[in-house]
Amino acid sequence: MIFIRELEQRILSEGKILPGEVLKVGSFLNQQIDTDLIKSMGDEIARLYEGDNVTKVLTIESSGIAIAFAVGLAMGVPVVFAKKHSSLNVTGNILTSKVYSYTHQQTYDVVVSGDYITGEDTILIVDDFLAKGNALNGLIEIVSQAGAKLAGCAIAIEKGFQGGGDALRAEGIRVESLAIIDRMTDDSLEFRPQ
Amino acid sequence: MIFIRELEQRILSEGKILPGEVLKVGSFLNQQIDTDLIKSMGDEIARLYEGDNVTKVLTIESSGIAIAFAVGLAMGVPVVFAKKHSSLNVTGNILTSKVYSYTHQQTYDVVVSGDYITGEDTILIVDDFLAKGNALNGLIEIVSQAGAKLAGCAIAIEKGFQGGGDALRAEGIRVESLAIIDRMTDDSLEFRPQ
Repeated sequence: MIFIRELEQRILSEGKILPGEVLKVGSFLNQQIDTDLIKSMGDEIARLYEGDNVTKVLTIESSGIAIAFAVGLAMGVPVVFAKKHSSLNVTGNILTSKVYSYTHQQTYDVVVSGDYITGEDTILIVDDFLAKGNALNGLIEIVSQAGAKLAGCAIAIEKGFQGGGDALRAEGIRVESLAIIDRMTDDSLEFRPQ
Repeated sequence: MIFIRELEQRILSEGKILPGEVLKVGSFLNQQIDTDLIKSMGDEIARLYEGDNVTKVLTIESSGIAIAFAVGLAMGVPVVFAKKHSSLNVTGNILTSKVYSYTHQQTYDVVVSGDYITGEDTILIVDDFLAKGNALNGLIEIVSQAGAKLAGCAIAIEKGFQGGGDALRAEGIRVESLAIIDRMTDDSLEFRPQ
């Protein structure tokens, strides 16, 4: 897995560890997007879920969109992105759940039009980060509301030490993370061997 | 231009015209993303700006990210996306401008880290929609603050009748829009011949 090693190297060389167990990778994933690296990540995720008959990729705005697009392109399926609203005033055929953001310390509504996910779909959820799993749980709730099948989740960087990924795996949900950080101090990172 | 005809057909068949001159194309561009169509759009925009030595693509969250990614991938350059903040409490090396959103009827701050756009860059601004040009003017201001060169702007759908694109062209800024709507009533659309 040459590119996974590249991803880990990029996290080590460019990641910035901030107070509150925050890892910033704005130089290639979160604000500036390294298109070739993200494309390789999309290809790898598509390979992992090959044969699972995924019909749509679901992500959440904003920083999940690029990697989700790369996955959808590699799989030949559409991408749907959930929107975040601080107060919900959308009506009609919508799927919605509530997510608490530790980064922004507020609860927001996650919304997808019911036109775009239905009981006929098999959904792959894709996001850039997985920490405690709040955003992922909100997206899983939306898949469930739609009556769609969940193929699993695919994540660029999982902060394994925050437990969200392993909690989902313990529930029997397939979670594939391209890099899993098992330990993070002010100046060091340790990856889970995969 | 087969795919531009396809884009216009998709706007005609799937676009929803709402009060306030709002055009919703959530089924392939704004919430659900047709990955193949967006890739074709990215390839076409890359072709239009071939030879302009673009070093980075700049867009704004959220719905510009997918098409900007497709352009960056086709050009082999990184994408940077500006973030929207309702109140600015970011400090340090940042580039920022104010943008008024007619959709949300509020002014927000548009922010990019100064680490990702510098005086060495030649920037192509990419967005999904162009109406009065407020978001685009905000991004152009950021390019100017960085001392970077602006190659031009590339847009998926321009609402030509709202004048933003032609105002920028009159200032000498290159604006390429894949589809330009020159007239829109409650139940009809007319495209500018290109």
